[in-house]
Amino acid sequence: MRRFLQKISRNSRTPEDGIFFDKISKILGFKPNDLHFYKKAFTHRSTNKVDENGNPFNYERLEFLGDAMLGSVIAAHLYNEVPTGDEGYLTKMRSKIVSREHLNELGRDLNLIQFIESKVNPQHFGENVHGNIFEAFIGAIYLDKGFVFCEKFIQNKVIEPYVDIPRLEGKVISYKSLIIEWCQKEKKQFAFEVFDDTGKEEQKFFAVRLIIDKKTIGKGRETSKKKAEEKAAKRAYFALQDQMDNKKK
Amino acid sequence: MRRFLQKISRNSRTPEDGIFFDKISKILGFKPNDLHFYKKAFTHRSTNKVDENGNPFNYERLEFLGDAMLGSVIAAHLYNEVPTGDEGYLTKMRSKIVSREHLNELGRDLNLIQFIESKVNPQHFGENVHGNIFEAFIGAIYLDKGFVFCEKFIQNKVIEPYVDIPRLEGKVISYKSLIIEWCQKEKKQFAFEVFDDTGKEEQKFFAVRLIIDKKTIGKGRETSKKKAEEKAAKRAYFALQDQMDNKKK
Repeated sequence: MRRFLQKISRNSRTPEDGIFFDKISKILGFKPNDLHFYKKAFTHRSTNKVDENGNPFNYERLEFLGDAMLGSVIAAHLYNEVPTGDEGYLTKMRSKIVSREHLNELGRDLNLIQFIESKVNPQHFGENVHGNIFEAFIGAIYLDKGFVFCEKFIQNKVIEPYVDIPRLEGKVISYKSLIIEWCQKEKKQFAFEVFDDTGKEEQKFFAVRLIIDKKTIGKGRETSKKKAEEKAAKRAYFALQDQMDNKKK
Repeated sequence: MRRFLQKISRNSRTPEDGIFFDKISKILGFKPNDLHFYKKAFTHRSTNKVDENGNPFNYERLEFLGDAMLGSVIAAHLYNEVPTGDEGYLTKMRSKIVSREHLNELGRDLNLIQFIESKVNPQHFGENVHGNIFEAFIGAIYLDKGFVFCEKFIQNKVIEPYVDIPRLEGKVISYKSLIIEWCQKEKKQFAFEVFDDTGKEEQKFFAVRLIIDKKTIGKGRETSKKKAEEKAAKRAYFALQDQMDNKKK
């Protein structure tokens, strides 16, 4: 019955909801059941929206829930991944992974801000809005699909692309120097190139691409050239990780 | 295949493991798959045990995992239960529920210390050992049975009997006065009686029973008479909650 009703409600989706559904499905890697949770995850308090019971309809409470889910999924990952790490190590590593800076990066990379509904211009929210809606999005996944899907999403979108234990342990300080060292050793040509950035933000951004053997391997966009280079190098590092690791062995 | 191997291993359980299995099943409210996790949850570092890979085999890392799982299950409960509570409220309520004092009480009430394996006399561990092995036990449940069972256990053993939102909000200060007030209003006879306590601990404990209309409704055992009365009253309050709530309406 529930599935039947869902099917009806899904078929009666408005065109805007259809677009939202497709975009969310693409980010999730699976289909959502109920878009309502995701809409809430992207609704800013400035809209003054309330739900059918008169309670505020915005993402602030979902942040709390998402933060908790993220914390437990990362805890389980670290527990399994680093059997030699004691409680203090696990606690420290988790706080590095779920740092404000890192959450902002995750939210920004998924471009979640495109979905935000707000009475205020989201450009004025500051950096933390990216991390906040990222947490809220995780809270929405938990409510919509349960823990296992939430874990799957965090595995695919957080752990696999970003959780790099040697780096977090402080063994890798700069991806830029790592990439340069590797290119030199492997006799590969490389260049960091600044390219035109068409962002319309008021703040100045620098866009850098890292080219290795004439192919663009990673791009970065940041508020300084140095930061943008490091980001491009980091992304290239993840893209090349298998190759780089094989050479090391 | 996995199930078949588990069945063999379960059938080949030693008599001690059989007793442990039965006791753990009773506390869990469901059957564990693999006792190994629970053994770890009750092994103190003083045993100097290591696993097959040479890593320490004790409950310290499991505490980290259990703490994270408890945090997310309580977060989801509060999110659903108190739709009017904002982020600050939810955070504050959760820290009250998972307070050190509360975790110690939960571990003590389940008498988890009976399972502890240690080279040191567990009487010398201090109060926090109860909370620590309670957290480790939750970590073991997660590893053995997954999130849903972990949530079920926390629902049955933590949330239902202990999570009393009005009390946590500070609206109920003393269960003793609440019970006395109710008994007077309902014209019920009541008495707090100190009774003989056969505990063998070095520290002095007080045991109090609360008798209402000639029936023992709650018992408490604490380091002061006042605390023991409050505990007996609290337990009576939970035992009588339906009756007390109906009268209020």
